[in-house]
Amino acid sequence: MKEIVIIGSGNVATHLALGLFGSGNKIVCVYSRNEKNAEALAKEVNAKATKNLQEIPTAADLYLLAVKDDAISEVSESLSVQGVVAHTSGITDINALKKHKCFGVFYPLQTFRKEVEIDLKQIPFLIEASDNETVQFLKNIASQLSEHVFETNTQSRQTAHLAAVFANNFTNHLFDVAQQILQQNNLPFDMLKPIILQTAMNVQTHLPQEVQTGAAARGDEKTIEAHLKLLNGNPQYKRLYELLTKSIIEKK
Amino acid sequence: MKEIVIIGSGNVATHLALGLFGSGNKIVCVYSRNEKNAEALAKEVNAKATKNLQEIPTAADLYLLAVKDDAISEVSESLSVQGVVAHTSGITDINALKKHKCFGVFYPLQTFRKEVEIDLKQIPFLIEASDNETVQFLKNIASQLSEHVFETNTQSRQTAHLAAVFANNFTNHLFDVAQQILQQNNLPFDMLKPIILQTAMNVQTHLPQEVQTGAAARGDEKTIEAHLKLLNGNPQYKRLYELLTKSIIEKK
Repeated sequence: MKEIVIIGSGNVATHLALGLFGSGNKIVCVYSRNEKNAEALAKEVNAKATKNLQEIPTAADLYLLAVKDDAISEVSESLSVQGVVAHTSGITDINALKKHKCFGVFYPLQTFRKEVEIDLKQIPFLIEASDNETVQFLKNIASQLSEHVFETNTQSRQTAHLAAVFANNFTNHLFDVAQQILQQNNLPFDMLKPIILQTAMNVQTHLPQEVQTGAAARGDEKTIEAHLKLLNGNPQYKRLYELLTKSIIEKK
Repeated sequence: MKEIVIIGSGNVATHLALGLFGSGNKIVCVYSRNEKNAEALAKEVNAKATKNLQEIPTAADLYLLAVKDDAISEVSESLSVQGVVAHTSGITDINALKKHKCFGVFYPLQTFRKEVEIDLKQIPFLIEASDNETVQFLKNIASQLSEHVFETNTQSRQTAHLAAVFANNFTNHLFDVAQQILQQNNLPFDMLKPIILQTAMNVQTHLPQEVQTGAAARGDEKTIEAHLKLLNGNPQYKRLYELLTKSIIEKK
């Protein structure tokens, strides 16, 4: 059982606070600039809430900075505490926390939304720290939450974050483009839900290259031409189609 | 109960044959140029197999052409039968079948793999036909398989197919790119499986634009720069990153 301070009250802060509380740790305090959010989360994990960094207890075991990437440095600088300080960002330099004696990264590779329940057990946690003892400390805590804990370096963590941008941000944008294309033709997005789910299911048991299908993978130029014709009124989506098709063809 | 001839023995042919057989129809014959495949599928649906188009019974109710898009015309021309002839393609012109008296399209909007079980009930079937009676005939059969049967025209069907290319082919290619990026850094693709599944789950209950996250959506240029730096050795993936990021930013 560790004493933990949660800094932040957003999607990541919420899921980690609930997970750490649920696995028997004591959440001593939840800080957020947004007092209402801090209070709501604090209530769920039996902690006190504050919107004042100076009110944070200084002797907790772990300070988890689950705030926006561009706020990490600033919050860290304002923080004078004795325990381990770790941020949860996939891309932010670990040295943003270097004013502290022991610091690290505690990065859960998942997309979180407060209102969506997530099984933390399956989520990869990427751990990096200032020293071996802190690595071990953070790995132990991550292991309470997940079966998939990795010790990484900055290059690996940032690479994993970049890969996740392709697998999540960009993929979701393609779903958005597909939805726009349907909507322009008065077709419901519901039509695509089964194929979207199946596409994600296929790569749970196969490498993506093993399950790649479609006109580009087949080199079916007639179909590609038909698609491009349908996109004639939409130069932005047409450019995306052309570049992604080219990329699939070059991969073959 | 209808008498149905399945032409083809690939992924789509297999799932439709099994579904139609399972919902009480009689599959009278399975045709494939590949005799072994024809026999394997025929055995599962209690049908005779043939690799000779001339051996196909001429008086069945429905001839389902589940062959490659570029083979549809040719197979149709070689076919002299009395029943309804329908292809299963999302993009091929319905008039590829116009030599027949009654013809149509029976397009299941899903990505099929023989070895992966699929619940046909959830899959949209897009129906188009030469005349109202044939539309009704094909809709009735599709309704035996699925709860989501749509009568469409060619423009709508081809648009749905195009949207599915974004949601499946291109999405899977992004998973492939993500896997390559991880592999180049000796990281396992397993890391991305939970986020890929969650990304697909999020749009089952929300529009993609409502759940778009990431550096591009936030306008977080520092993170975008860090990602581009990681992609320096890989001009093709960098171009994809830039175009997709631009597309997300322009969408805002």
